[in-house]
This record gives sequence, C-alpha cells and structure tokens, in this order.
Amino acid sequence: MYNSIGNTLRLTTFGESHGTAIGGILDGCTANIPIDEQLLRSDIQRRQVGDTLYGVSFEQFATPRHEPDNVTFLSGILDGTTLGTPIAFVINNSDTNGADYNVLQSLYRPLHADRTWEQRFGRRDPRGGGRASARETVARVVAGVVAKSILKTHDINVIATVKSLAGIEISNNATALQASQILADIQQKGDTAGGTITCTVEGMPAGIGNPTFDRLQSRLAYALMSIPTVRAFEFGQGSSAPNLTGSEYIAYSQEHTDGIIGGISDGNPVTIRLALHPVGTIAQGTPCLDRDGNTHVVKPQGRHDTCHVPRTAVIVEAMTALTIADLMITQ
Amino acid sequence: MYNSIGNTLRLTTFGESHGTAIGGILDGCTANIPIDEQLLRSDIQRRQVGDTLYGVSFEQFATPRHEPDNVTFLSGILDGTTLGTPIAFVINNSDTNGADYNVLQSLYRPLHADRTWEQRFGRRDPRGGGRASARETVARVVAGVVAKSILKTHDINVIATVKSLAGIEISNNATALQASQILADIQQKGDTAGGTITCTVEGMPAGIGNPTFDRLQSRLAYALMSIPTVRAFEFGQGSSAPNLTGSEYIAYSQEHTDGIIGGISDGNPVTIRLALHPVGTIAQGTPCLDRDGNTHVVKPQGRHDTCHVPRTAVIVEAMTALTIADLMITQ
Amino acid sequence: MYNSIGNTLRLTTFGESHGTAIGGILDGCTANIPIDEQLLRSDIQRRQVGDTLYGVSFEQFATPRHEPDNVTFLSGILDGTTLGTPIAFVINNSDTNGADYNVLQSLYRPLHADRTWEQRFGRRDPRGGGRASARETVARVVAGVVAKSILKTHDINVIATVKSLAGIEISNNATALQASQILADIQQKGDTAGGTITCTVEGMPAGIGNPTFDRLQSRLAYALMSIPTVRAFEFGQGSSAPNLTGSEYIAYSQEHTDGIIGGISDGNPVTIRLALHPVGTIAQGTPCLDRDGNTHVVKPQGRHDTCHVPRTAVIVEAMTALTIADLMITQ
Amino acid sequence: MYNSIGNTLRLTTFGESHGTAIGGILDGCTANIPIDEQLLRSDIQRRQVGDTLYGVSFEQFATPRHEPDNVTFLSGILDGTTLGTPIAFVINNSDTNGADYNVLQSLYRPLHADRTWEQRFGRRDPRGGGRASARETVARVVAGVVAKSILKTHDINVIATVKSLAGIEISNNATALQASQILADIQQKGDTAGGTITCTVEGMPAGIGNPTFDRLQSRLAYALMSIPTVRAFEFGQGSSAPNLTGSEYIAYSQEHTDGIIGGISDGNPVTIRLALHPVGTIAQGTPCLDRDGNTHVVKPQGRHDTCHVPRTAVIVEAMTALTIADLMITQ
Repeated sequence: MYNSIGNTLRLTTFGESHGTAIGGILDGCTANIPIDEQLLRSDIQRRQVGDTLYGVSFEQFATPRHEPDNVTFLSGILDGTTLGTPIAFVINNSDTNGADYNVLQSLYRPLHADRTWEQRFGRRDPRGGGRASARETVARVVAGVVAKSILKTHDINVIATVKSLAGIEISNNATALQASQILADIQQKGDTAGGTITCTVEGMPAGIGNPTFDRLQSRLAYALMSIPTVRAFEFGQGSSAPNLTGSEYIAYSQEHTDGIIGGISDGNPVTIRLALHPVGTIAQGTPCLDRDGNTHVVKPQGRHDTCHVPRTAVIVEAMTALTIADLMITQ
Repeated sequence: MYNSIGNTLRLTTFGESHGTAIGGILDGCTANIPIDEQLLRSDIQRRQVGDTLYGVSFEQFATPRHEPDNVTFLSGILDGTTLGTPIAFVINNSDTNGADYNVLQSLYRPLHADRTWEQRFGRRDPRGGGRASARETVARVVAGVVAKSILKTHDINVIATVKSLAGIEISNNATALQASQILADIQQKGDTAGGTITCTVEGMPAGIGNPTFDRLQSRLAYALMSIPTVRAFEFGQGSSAPNLTGSEYIAYSQEHTDGIIGGISDGNPVTIRLALHPVGTIAQGTPCLDRDGNTHVVKPQGRHDTCHVPRTAVIVEAMTALTIADLMITQ
Repeated sequence: MYNSIGNTLRLTTFGESHGTAIGGILDGCTANIPIDEQLLRSDIQRRQVGDTLYGVSFEQFATPRHEPDNVTFLSGILDGTTLGTPIAFVINNSDTNGADYNVLQSLYRPLHADRTWEQRFGRRDPRGGGRASARETVARVVAGVVAKSILKTHDINVIATVKSLAGIEISNNATALQASQILADIQQKGDTAGGTITCTVEGMPAGIGNPTFDRLQSRLAYALMSIPTVRAFEFGQGSSAPNLTGSEYIAYSQEHTDGIIGGISDGNPVTIRLALHPVGTIAQGTPCLDRDGNTHVVKPQGRHDTCHVPRTAVIVEAMTALTIADLMITQ
Repeated sequence: MYNSIGNTLRLTTFGESHGTAIGGILDGCTANIPIDEQLLRSDIQRRQVGDTLYGVSFEQFATPRHEPDNVTFLSGILDGTTLGTPIAFVINNSDTNGADYNVLQSLYRPLHADRTWEQRFGRRDPRGGGRASARETVARVVAGVVAKSILKTHDINVIATVKSLAGIEISNNATALQASQILADIQQKGDTAGGTITCTVEGMPAGIGNPTFDRLQSRLAYALMSIPTVRAFEFGQGSSAPNLTGSEYIAYSQEHTDGIIGGISDGNPVTIRLALHPVGTIAQGTPCLDRDGNTHVVKPQGRHDTCHVPRTAVIVEAMTALTIADLMITQ
C-alpha cells in the first residue's frame, strides 16, 4: 500500500526511473471537474526547471536531464472534464541513460535508498535509482493538477513558495540574486544545497479534518514528509510555539490563527513550512560504500541537481492539494 | 476512522472527558507477549505528574485533577501474556466535576476544538471538552505499554525526553531548576508555558518503513502530530538540514546518520524532535468567544496545567512505540 | 483488522467466550441518532431464545446458557442519542462454566476453529472456544441496533426471517409445528439441525453501492459469510438465475428486480438468502481429534443448541444493517 | 476505493469500454516472481473465446468483438521476473465501434448499470457501457496471471470449471454437446443463457484466513460477487448444508471437509460454486426504458454474447487467485 496515498481520492503511482514509463491512477475524483490543461503544462515545467524567485531563475542549478514529460491520460477524462472513473496517466521515459549508473550497481550512495531498499525488499533495480528516484514525483505533479482543479471549484488555492536556499532567506530580488551567487559557488565546487519552502492553503473552508488521530496536521505531515529530502514539518507558529506563553499565544492567534484547531480547520488559511536537506549526489565526488563496507569515491556521470529546492515547490503544492481534496471528498 | 490509528496493530480509542469511561481496543497484537505491569503503573503515573528532570520534579505545574486511572483489561490477556485477540481496556472516570464547565457550554475557548468540533460534526458534548480533551491520551499510554512490550521482545527501546520548557534548554540540574523557577513565575501570573521533547528509538532494526508514500518519517509524523499542542516535527538534522551543503551532510551522516534513508530505517537509532505550544486555558482569564463573536473573559474553575510538557513525554513514547510496532508486525 | 468491519461506520469487537466481557466499539456513527432501547432489549432476547415462527416457539432448541446480557454503553451516547463519537459497549460474562470445557483443551472439535486457530495464531484460549465462539455475536447484535436506528431515520427496515429448519420449509403454523416436531426428534437423538434464512431491506434507496469491485452484493456477502455456519449466499434470483433465458430474466426483473444492478441499488427492496449448516457439537457424542490424529468421542457437558437458526436471524439483520448504514454514511 | 481490491496485494483497474485503454496497477507483489508469459496469452485467450468443455468449443456463443488484447507492462517487471514494485499494465482498445451504442445513450438497458450509474454518480459515459462494461474484466485476468504466478511458487493451483450451461449439467462430451445444441437454439431465437461455475484451490495451505469478520469465505465471496452476473456463492456443502443433521455433516466432513473451518483454511482443497444469470442484451429485442419510464424495444447492433459463462471461468480463477495471494502475502 506504500505506493498509494489518500482514502477516497487515492493516488497510486508506478514506474522505475529508467523503466518504460512513470505514471499513476487517481481514483475517487468526482465527476464533471474541468482539468486545466495550461496548469498541467505549467506545473510539469515548474518541476523541470524550478521556480523563478523575484525575477531570478534558478534553472541552471537543476539537472540537465530533460524529459519531454508528455502526459497521456488513458481514462477518466472525456472532453476535458472528469468522468468520475479512475484517471490513469502515463509519462514515457525517453532520456534513460542507463549506462550512467552502471558503476553504481554494486555500490550504496549516501542519502539514497540503495542499501535500505535491499534491506527491505531483497531486490534492487540496477537501472538508476529504480523506483526510489525523484523521477517518481512527476506522477505526483500530474495528480496534483487534478486535485488543484477540484479545489478550484471550491475557490481554494494552494501556493508553495521557496523561502530560503543555501541558508539565505529570500524575500526580494536582492536576496534572490545573493542566493543565486552562492549556489553558483557551490555548483562550481561540485557541491549541493538545501533550502526551505512554505505552503499556504488560501480559501481553506472551516470544518475540514478530524479530532483525535486523523488530524488535518497529521494528514499534511504524512503527505509532505513523503517528499524526498524533507526533514522538518511545521504549521502555524511551528518551532517558535514553545517560546510564547499561553496568553501570548492566544493574543497571536486572535489575529493570525494557526488555521487548525484541535485537528480541524477553522476557516483561516493554513500555512506549513518544510526544511529540505541537500541532495546526496555531488559532482566533486560522492563517497559510496560497497557491500563489504569499503568506501569508493565516485564522480557521478548521471545528471543531478545542485539545488533541487526550486523544483520541489510544485511537488509540495501537489501533495498538499491531494490531501485537502481527499479530506473534502471523504467528508 | 479518525479514532483509530495503525494498520495491523490498530488502536481505537473511545470516551468523553466527563463520560463514564475512557478506553480502547488494541487489535492485531501478536500472541504470547508478556505485559509489563510495572511499566503500566509507571507510565500511567508519568502521564499524571510529569517526568522529573535531573532530579527536579515538575508535578506542581500539572493539573490537580487526579484520577486513580485504574486500568481494567477486558480481553486479550490471560495470565499476564497476550492471546493474540483484541485487547480491550477501560479506565473509569471518577473525578468528573462537570459543574466546572457549565459556564463554557455556550462559549468557544481559544486553542480548543470547541467551535471547530461544531463546524465538523454539528453536535458538541457540553460536559467539559467531551471527546476533544487531553484525557483521551490516557488510552494511548495504556496501548503504548503493550506496544513497548512488543518492542522489548526485539530489544527496542523508545525513550522521550523533555528538552526545553518555557524557552529554557534543560541539560542539567541547574537548567532544570531555572526552568522550574520560570514556570513558578508563569504559574503565579496565571499563565501557561510550552516546550520541546525529543524521542529516540534505540535498537531500531534496519529495513523498517516504506519508500514512496508510507515512509517511516511519514508514519511517525502522522502519529506524533496527533498529540495535542504539537506544532513541529523533525527528524535527523531536522530544521538545521538546509544549512549544510551536500558534502557536509554526507560527512555528518557518515558518523551520525538520520536513522532513515529513503523512507526506510538503516539500523541506526531514529531521533525525532517536537515543539509544543502552551495550553490555552489560563487562570488569569481566558478570552472566549460566544456564538455572536463577542469576547468573554472567563476564569476557568476547571483544573488545568501550567505546563503540560513533562506529562506529554510518555504520550510521545506511546505514539512512537505504536507506530514502530505496527510497521514491524505489518512487514 | 479481522476484528473490525466497515469503512466509515466501523465495528470492532472484542472478548473471549469465557473471559471477563464481550463488547465492541462502533465508530463513525452520525450525531443525534436516537437509540431505540426497546429494540435493544428485544434484539438481545431474540438472540437468546430465537424467533417465534407463526406462533410456534423454538426456545427449547436453544442452548440453556442464559447470560443476562446487560449492555453498558461507556461512551458515544448522551441522553439516549448519539454524540457522533465512538460508541463503546460492554456485556459482562457471568455464566462462564469453564470447567465444562476442560476435557476439550487438548482436543479439536469438528466444525470448530480449534485446530485452524492454532495453525493461524500459534496460541489458543483454553477456556471454551475463546474468541472463536458464537458468543462474540452478541456484540454484533448491539451494534446492529445502532445501525438499525440510523437506517430508521431514513425509513429503511431490515427484516430477516427463518425460511426452513431441518429441511422443512416454513410458511405457516402447520409447517412450523412440523419443523418443531422434527427438531424434537433430532434433539432426542442428541443431534443438531441447520436451516435457511432470508433477509429483506425494505425502503432501500437507489444509488447505494459501487460498480467494479466494492459492489453492494460484495459487501453484503462479505458481511454475511462472516456469520458462523453460513455456507451459501444468494440475492435476487440467486441459484435459480441460470435456469432462465435472458428474455425470461428481463421479464422477471421488470416486475420483481434483484434490487441491485451493476453493484448499485435501484430503489427496489434487496433480498438475500443464506444456508446454514447444523452446529458441530452434538450431545450423542462428538468425535474429536487429538494432536496425534486419534479420534475421541466426547459427550459435551457445555450447553449447546439443537438448532441455532432461529437465534441467527437477528444476527443476519445486524450484519445487513451495519453494511447498508456504512455504505450510506460513506457515500 | 471501489476500483481497488486487496489489502497488501492490491489491484486497481482503470479504463472505459470505448476509451483509450484498459489496464491496472497491481501493487504489493513480492520480488523475484517469474511471470508465466504463456499462461498470460492462454488466459487472455480463454477470456476471449471461452473454455472448451470435453472437446466441445463454445466460441460461437461468444461476442464476435475481438480485441487483440496485447498487454504492455509499463513497470514492476524486469527480465521476466517481478521487481517488488507496482506492476502497471495497459491494453489498448482498438475495436471500439462507438456508433453501435449511439441509440442507447438516452436509454436504460435492462440488467445493466445504466440507470443506477446515473443515480450513483450523476454522470454516465455515453460511449458503450463506459466503465460498467465486462471489458473491464480483462484487467482482472492480467492481474490474475501474476497472482497465479505467485501461488505457483507455493504449489497452489486455482482451477475453475463450467458445470452447467442453460440448465444442462455438463459432465462429459455428450452433455457438452447437448448444451451446445440448446445454446444454438437460444442463439437462433436471439436469446441468451446463464450457467454455473465451480472453482477449486488445490494445494491450499492450512492457516490462511481470519476468524471473526475477515474470514476466508468472506473474502472469496466479496471478490467473486464482484464478477458481473454472479447471483449466488457457496462453498463446501453450500446450499445443501441445511439438509444434513450435525452428525451427518461431521461424518461428511471427516472425509471431504469444506476446506475452511471458522474462517481459516484447514489444509484441504477449497471449492466454491457460483450461479450466473444470462446477460441482458438480447438480439431478439431488448426492452429499454427512457428517462420518462417508457419502454423502447431495441435490437442491439453492439456485439454481445449468447452465453458468457465459458468466458467467465478464467475471471473466476483470477479473482480467486488474487484473494488467496493477498491473504498469504498479508499474513
């Protein structure tokens, strides 16, 4: 069941990084939802080249592997609107340069699921990361577009924004340029960088979520911690919450609110924050382990990101939108 | 389904704060697990009076509502060991001073699920917080003892520790005393305080968890964000992760590791960190809203905590142990 | 998860036959449903003594084990109506004559889950049938009363009727008396008898159920095949369906209909039929196997039924009502 | 969730009868299972032309719509064995003669989900039966081949056999010919016929299934009642069970057994029996209703079966194999 997420609106994804195709089935979507084709193209592209921040592009820090990522819908959509039946979609893999990875077949890369995958399943796909590759997230973005289309019919918008890169808080064009320069340095050294992303659900209706276990924040955390490299999840005051007294927190919440009280939305926007670590494949030489525990420094020939964070914002939106839409359809 | 958590080892809890009883059913426990009665008594007490830190007790900051919290097992256990059948347990409510809450029946308390509960379900229990009360967590502690007993047969220990209170990091007796003094001040002002808790799974075996969606960190975040007042969840380097470059993160992880790679445990200890906001019922006067949106300042007669964080550590352990045990039994 | 049934309205039962108590939690019930206390008493009694058919009582063929079966609700109900929170209920076991079963501790009874339970779980409760006892069904009857109370608010009635006993079709007082006489003979010989039951959902609304896999008939079959001794499930024309040509079946369905088309109710009553085998504990001497495969003929001292079918009708109603109510709440 | 079946080994199917493609994802399959390509071709063909019985072919009574039904696996299989990742597969629709169905767009066919689909979802695919078409079962057959491949590694075989057609029990060549002649008559009259199928699980291991609710017979009934036109499900003595006394049933079970005791397999073969009604599209003229309740007799131009039962046996095998394999992987 770990390739599925959602209760009523349920996404199941499939596909190995260097196999025939990546795709999924999104089941449980209500009928008569218009699918925004332009949003689909735009979101697919955001995942490829990353978000532009205050006019500054970060595309040069994204992997040069460029799939065309043409999405074919096989079912569930007729004349641009949903039928209420399962929506199956496929994205063919074309730029699968399997030879890039040959050297890694018997090695375990750091921060990758190479060894843990073997420990869990006993067999690992030797072609690239197999299933445990960030390529899988393209299926999430496609399903996210459908989820956003559902939310749009309720006037709900999900907007993720990169807040910092390589330790630089980005709040205007100057800080965006500063981050870009630092990333250029890091890239030149053959290293990588992480960052932070916030995501706000605007137009969030009251009464969504559950008390006790299946809280709105539980569901959001569950979905967002499934994005590779995410190491921290907060909402509302988040990690600053313990620094306030009760009376201060109440005073704060009278103006801003956390958007969620007791596991249920209160009608105010919900904002979450994520911290992402840098990716573990580094051009300067990645120290890999073999099965005997010896270290081999490998210069990756595969195409990887200097900073994946600008490309991740749209994935954060997708997982958030899928979660909110699922809860709304379930209730 | 929001009163249940877990797939194979599944806990379902019941009970209103001022109803007849609180309890639950823990289904899916393997047979022949010895239940540690002493741990049960100890964990129930930790939830009542809070953990002592470096010799300093924080009991005076816990609510004076003291239930005897005698646990009766109705099924699933014979001669001190599990039968493999559902384990039902009941804790009667005795100290239910319903009159304390009468004034609040038509008011919405801040940071409580009073209004959102009505928005979600249409009917709210007028007796205290009803189901949306921290009293519900006693059932989690009981189930947590069973989960810990399962993990013990695999030499796995789950240990939660209070790391800060009211903004004071606690790492020795002096800082514990300092925190106690600050809490005494806050208590005198009729205010409340939050804090942070870490939780470590020692003896964590490799290969537990899932890639893609149902990752180990997703499951832990899902379970721990269900604890009232938790606002942030991190693991491994957590919110510091974006400050390192890839090569620094790899260097760090060669010595410490995050315990989870690609959603699956790697055999190293897993450590999570939580931030908790202060509780919203404050003795100096709690600003409540009525249905017309007017504010009424209420001095609560109910018995509430100045700082609930030392009492929450054992609940963190329970939710962590239930999550790990469920994943292990499922696999 | 095999002690739970239902998706949104989910029943989890607990309790061993000769343990402290039997009970369950019914989660997901909507708020403000009035619970019919008289129906509860009546349904509990129907399970104890069996249904009267055309004025003829079959109580003398039911087990003389008579528990008071007093139901205590621990949560979820206030002032006779549901709160929307989990409904926990307990029935204490009092008439637990464990000594009756001592001889069977090391033997496997025919048609009982004694050996298969060991094969599945490795540990068997030595007290009576443990969890694998028909006593468990009292929890289903209690939950069934809540489900019926939900359906009543939609003017839906679920009515199960005994159609045959010991091979005698019962359609009037004469045939009921005939069945009673045959059962008296069977009882005298120390033997047991089976029978058939039909169940009709009156007032069934259109549009309930699902196409593809989770069909209304799939859900009903799943729930009803969980009743001990049921060996056949049919709906509509059932096992006679293959004897008609398509044109005949269409002609029939224009007047009567099967109530379900393509997995979804069509607004007509739904009728199902069940065949039950006789119970396997027989007074004349029950051939049991020991662990070495040797047969021992045991005269059971426990109290068992000559014919359990009149007592089963109310259980059939309960499982049907729970299934329909769950589907309606889920949709 | 009604397009998915199974807990750990979970099949999700997609596709409209006259859409782009039919297919599915089978998730949860263990790694390193060799997929039998020849079985795949053979099972696909059995679904197209129906089983030959005692040397007698029934292909002339199957629909002349012949899709090539070429199966493309998109993921989860490498070099003929499973990877342990989701197995996605697609069968393109080519013979979609949509015009055949135009006349039916505003009519409700008898025994079809035309009206109930509208009542359930509000929107119906105007192209043929849309999702509610027997074409969907091709995805089940493909997944069934994977499930059979899993079972084969445990020496378990699932074999379904047509037992009767048009009311004729078929046990040798003479009765098969008799059935064929009767079907020829029915075909000439433009009518249709039903039949019965048995399915046996050979090599069934002991200890599979669950007590209480999720019984082996519950799971089988749930899966098999999802096959279109099935109206009755039995196992073991089935509908004859009530005709025996307890001592007779015990005597029978000492030699044959039902294969399932108390919801759990006992190591003997499990045999189930199904009754299928004739399909509701008949060439002589099908009485359809319009939205105003008026009847229109339509001579279908679409290509339909005189008797679909010989084609259904392989679908029965698929659903049985998926159910057994899921239970085994889950446990």
